[in-house]
Amino acid sequence: MNTGTLGPRQSYSEKATRQWFSLCHPDEQRISFFDDIRDVFSALEDGRIEVGVVPVENSIEGSVGVTLDQLLEKQVSIIGEVVVPIRHCLLSRGRSEDIHIIQSHPHALAQCRQFLRDNFPDAELRTTGSTSHAARLATEFCEMAAIASEEAAQAYGLNVLMDDIQDREKNETRFIIMVSGLNIPKCEIDASLVFRNKTSIIVYLDSDRPGALYEILKEFAVRDINLTRIESRPSKKSLGDYLFYIDLEGSGKSGKVADALKQIGRKTDRLKMLGSYGEYIVDEIQ
Amino acid sequence: MNTGTLGPRQSYSEKATRQWFSLCHPDEQRISFFDDIRDVFSALEDGRIEVGVVPVENSIEGSVGVTLDQLLEKQVSIIGEVVVPIRHCLLSRGRSEDIHIIQSHPHALAQCRQFLRDNFPDAELRTTGSTSHAARLATEFCEMAAIASEEAAQAYGLNVLMDDIQDREKNETRFIIMVSGLNIPKCEIDASLVFRNKTSIIVYLDSDRPGALYEILKEFAVRDINLTRIESRPSKKSLGDYLFYIDLEGSGKSGKVADALKQIGRKTDRLKMLGSYGEYIVDEIQ
Repeated sequence: MNTGTLGPRQSYSEKATRQWFSLCHPDEQRISFFDDIRDVFSALEDGRIEVGVVPVENSIEGSVGVTLDQLLEKQVSIIGEVVVPIRHCLLSRGRSEDIHIIQSHPHALAQCRQFLRDNFPDAELRTTGSTSHAARLATEFCEMAAIASEEAAQAYGLNVLMDDIQDREKNETRFIIMVSGLNIPKCEIDASLVFRNKTSIIVYLDSDRPGALYEILKEFAVRDINLTRIESRPSKKSLGDYLFYIDLEGSGKSGKVADALKQIGRKTDRLKMLGSYGEYIVDEIQ
Repeated sequence: MNTGTLGPRQSYSEKATRQWFSLCHPDEQRISFFDDIRDVFSALEDGRIEVGVVPVENSIEGSVGVTLDQLLEKQVSIIGEVVVPIRHCLLSRGRSEDIHIIQSHPHALAQCRQFLRDNFPDAELRTTGSTSHAARLATEFCEMAAIASEEAAQAYGLNVLMDDIQDREKNETRFIIMVSGLNIPKCEIDASLVFRNKTSIIVYLDSDRPGALYEILKEFAVRDINLTRIESRPSKKSLGDYLFYIDLEGSGKSGKVADALKQIGRKTDRLKMLGSYGEYIVDEIQ
């Protein structure tokens, strides 16, 4: 299975991809690494990869905006999700007192906002495409540090100056597994590992109509369908105009979820199905 | 009126503050500039400033996470909002071909994501506390550029290398005007300038209860109250546990909005009132 994710190696995205492999047991575990989340979507669309793995949401910092925007723009289907525990470390070739540049993915910097403010208020903050890219760059100078995983420290020969530096003890990121269109790869997953089935959709609601969102949610409520997430994202047309990203329990292929989606399709101009898929119970990969 | 906002001078936050002054006509227009959004909230809480002005939402990149988190944490009331058109420029002392470092506030970098990718795919991206801070730093080296306003170019003696560089032509940021507790400053605003009244709340909903959000929205829908925005934000306890930030039309001080909020207060453990305030029609300040 030719899979693409955010790299270079030892990114949290690689961890997510390996968790997926541990469930799916593909014959061939080939990972292509990309510099940017958008590149993963493009490679999937062009057929350069069969499966793409990208972060979508973090428990401290919330949604990954670029992933939500790409899910609207590109023709992809979500086929699964995995959750990766995130334990950020401060990595460097140098010593703590030498650090005056700290770099990482913007989401990782935001997850460590308080730590950075308390410990390195004067450091220059640089953004990189991924945490592991920051680690690779930190090998260049002693005054540079990266926020990345412990595994990245080992891979790039850096010292762990401080560990578990995110602003809350519990930090997790949800990754989605995607394919292009409906090219679902062969993958037999043990049904006992499926914690629950989920369906993800995007709905565009006319901002001038009061109660439009309520009318949509009603279709789920009357059928006792649990929403696991609802997130608004600017339509980018004007301030106050939104798309809603909704995740719900159950498969949209049949039954009450399919009924609800049919009704919603009648009420809105734009309903995009992102897929019905499993949320899995996975032991952490070491 | 001792007002604090994100600085240094010629930030978009300063523009928002001056828009507010043009509405409110305070006797004294004193602006204190802060390095970080959290510093504005702290200064408000400590009584070092009477009024704070911070960005809350952008039409391309969505919510400003740190502002939402601080609204939950700190005891502040929203007393008004203004919308500022955002036209980002690439500013530098040097020439386009020399640029290999581009810096700005993370939200501004995200609003110009496609521009950066198309024009400066190899540039190093650095984050700063504000766009104007980036402009001030860009005076140091010819190979540095900042993403900031045209006014920042003038203020810091930089050249505008490219203008209107955000990923969509229309780009606006909504700023909120806040006071500490209920210390509302004297400010008589012409009623004809009030476009509409709004109320902002934060609600925490138990993630295990299906239809909890629907039950809340029902209270607004049955009273024909229009929601202008609904945004989820991680509670930071665990993945899948959210707070909802809801903006709605109407004042919460009396009438149907007050009734709805009373009912919602009975249904949820945590309802935080952020304030009822005016959305104003303001001519752009030059």
